[in-house]
Amino acid sequence: MDAISVIRTKRDRGRLSDQQIDWVIDAYTRGEVADEQMSALAMAILLNGMTRQEIARWTAAMIASGERMDFSGLPLPTVDKHSTGGVGDKITLPLAPLVAACGAAVPQLSGRGLGHTGGTLDKLESIPGWRASLSNEEMLGVLREAGAVICAAGEGLAPADRKLYALRDVTATVESMPLIASSIMSKKIAEGTGALVLDVKVGSGAFMKNLSDARELAHTMVGLGHDHGLPTVALLTDMSTPLGLTAGNALEVRESVEVLSGGGPDDVVALTLALAREMLAAAGATGKDPADALRDGTAMDHWRRMVTAQGGDPDAPLPTSREQHVLTADRDGVLTTLDAYAVGVAAWRLGAGRARKEDAVQLAAGVELHAKPGAAVRAGQPLLTLHTDTPERFPHALEALADGVVVSPPGTEHQRGGTVLERIA
Amino acid sequence: MDAISVIRTKRDRGRLSDQQIDWVIDAYTRGEVADEQMSALAMAILLNGMTRQEIARWTAAMIASGERMDFSGLPLPTVDKHSTGGVGDKITLPLAPLVAACGAAVPQLSGRGLGHTGGTLDKLESIPGWRASLSNEEMLGVLREAGAVICAAGEGLAPADRKLYALRDVTATVESMPLIASSIMSKKIAEGTGALVLDVKVGSGAFMKNLSDARELAHTMVGLGHDHGLPTVALLTDMSTPLGLTAGNALEVRESVEVLSGGGPDDVVALTLALAREMLAAAGATGKDPADALRDGTAMDHWRRMVTAQGGDPDAPLPTSREQHVLTADRDGVLTTLDAYAVGVAAWRLGAGRARKEDAVQLAAGVELHAKPGAAVRAGQPLLTLHTDTPERFPHALEALADGVVVSPPGTEHQRGGTVLERIA
Repeated sequence: MDAISVIRTKRDRGRLSDQQIDWVIDAYTRGEVADEQMSALAMAILLNGMTRQEIARWTAAMIASGERMDFSGLPLPTVDKHSTGGVGDKITLPLAPLVAACGAAVPQLSGRGLGHTGGTLDKLESIPGWRASLSNEEMLGVLREAGAVICAAGEGLAPADRKLYALRDVTATVESMPLIASSIMSKKIAEGTGALVLDVKVGSGAFMKNLSDARELAHTMVGLGHDHGLPTVALLTDMSTPLGLTAGNALEVRESVEVLSGGGPDDVVALTLALAREMLAAAGATGKDPADALRDGTAMDHWRRMVTAQGGDPDAPLPTSREQHVLTADRDGVLTTLDAYAVGVAAWRLGAGRARKEDAVQLAAGVELHAKPGAAVRAGQPLLTLHTDTPERFPHALEALADGVVVSPPGTEHQRGGTVLERIA
Repeated sequence: MDAISVIRTKRDRGRLSDQQIDWVIDAYTRGEVADEQMSALAMAILLNGMTRQEIARWTAAMIASGERMDFSGLPLPTVDKHSTGGVGDKITLPLAPLVAACGAAVPQLSGRGLGHTGGTLDKLESIPGWRASLSNEEMLGVLREAGAVICAAGEGLAPADRKLYALRDVTATVESMPLIASSIMSKKIAEGTGALVLDVKVGSGAFMKNLSDARELAHTMVGLGHDHGLPTVALLTDMSTPLGLTAGNALEVRESVEVLSGGGPDDVVALTLALAREMLAAAGATGKDPADALRDGTAMDHWRRMVTAQGGDPDAPLPTSREQHVLTADRDGVLTTLDAYAVGVAAWRLGAGRARKEDAVQLAAGVELHAKPGAAVRAGQPLLTLHTDTPERFPHALEALADGVVVSPPGTEHQRGGTVLERIA
């Protein structure tokens, strides 16, 4: 077996054998297959695709590249959620403690933002003291203490995926359905959660721009879960406009805390509850309605315990930006478009995201929305506030928004966002 | 400009702009674009192709990555030949001194064998003392002394191609028409030859298996030559059966010396003369018929001067193999197939070629043919002799030949080889 023959098989539109897949993943993890060979293979996979059987074996090989966690010793059923990434998608923050408050444990391994989409760990790091990196023992401890934990995946979990993900990021091979599905599912299966709910985003601010691509990704991931005995459900949800009224790290934490306090924007509350109900059903924990847990303070209580157990101070003030710029409506009318991708890129350029993995993010940077599509607006009324610590970033961020914010004559049809489009199980 | 956006353009079937091509070649040469990024781009180019205009710019950027040589100070016109590689293709060895004997100077930059095809430099290194690596000054000195020089390309010539070629070799991205054409032509144009004749091989033992692919490659390279003011002609020649009666380093030198002595196999003589006539016509040196130069000893004289000027001893005995294995005909009949690829792989496995760039070759290893397609044979008659210093290689080499040597009932139609199929100018 050698790397060249494996690459050649996929290059020539062949089907990789189980032996080829097992070998190439193992040899890449050990460093015998070089980065430049794996990137050529990744490009061939992106362009020529993989069959369901190849994806299943690829996923299994990535799981086998590292350790598997086991939560079966916990007294509660476990359930995890994964979002394919969007703009203003802070749902994990209220969701994990909410589900914990309703009787299921949530071992939530999360990632960092890259490009125009935010990362859960970056957001939580705007809470003073909060730590993303936990040992397996610490993770179990937080889970026992708070019922939920949100942390970075350990080094030992699917190391092949860790290496491959970093490589795909610099070689324009991220956008491959087989590679996305196997990357997500290998980590979730190795993590050892008892059930999984997927939030597959569709629209301009998501990786999948149209419903049929999102559907294919969802079906593939649900199938992979079932193959490995992991009950998996996917919701396809709209990402054509940002979720809620904020995009940016500390801004989104603030909004999440509003939701946990029983308030917050309607779309965020609705999606949080929809996902919570799916997670609780998948875990078989249906004793308490999550809407009650938002109202009665138990979700907030779990949030505070979780943040505290990870070193954070839930009462400390969140960072605020040094500079703001307000974008106003240029006419009377209705806000018909507030494009998720445009807002995501603007937040990114303001400093909320990073261009390279090793960059730091500005915790207070981002975009605050004062209206959502459908709102009637008057000329001069504030639509967005841009936040950054480095005001020289404003012009480049405003450029990104140029075609993304549209005020039309009253009565014009408008975008709708934040809704569940389909359920795939 | 960044590598990811360039890769993404080609991945999404776009056309690379001049700026993108110039930047990526320059940044790769400087090490700013990483190997894993270039290999992803190479795979995208292999699968999605390039337009003529992209290939032209890519070639120009590779030329610009290094120095250009200049032979305009020589009293003679210069002309070079390039073969796309075949089995038993020792033509460069008699051709270069032959053309020199007829009044044109031949600055022949050559390569090493890889895979099943042999390399001119490996062959010449079976002559005791002969040196492949010369400085630019030494190269000019040999050219003045002998009228011909065969040596390795210097480090400074198209360094982008040098780096990219090594990368393509380990990432299964060799077989891309745009990358092959630009690789060959960038080196030949940077080398500064006054005219160029291309021998584009077609058939099982060649890279191009069919005539239409070979034709496209030839037209592309001839076009690139003309774009850069380099008169270029291509001959498409058959490579379905080996050229001559030997494949292997010292074995091919021996056969080349036979041709220079006025003997040698008909097909090698015919192709050598056809290419010599094209080269002399391209250089405008038509005073002497090359057939005369083989007969009257002047070609041999130039060979001896060239070998001597590069440190070699033209009278020293060539290495011979420690072990031989004879393959005989299993029936009476006619030899209908002697497949070039099968013989090439057998020679490679016997030690004449290398699996990795850093491997050494066995100078005496290879395959000697005792009959060519069309020959009437009797059961038990020797067809091939396999040569190696390491007899444990025989079984693996014989496997390669299993379907490549076919004796059929008398009267069966047979392969023909070694002939010029088309001329493209």
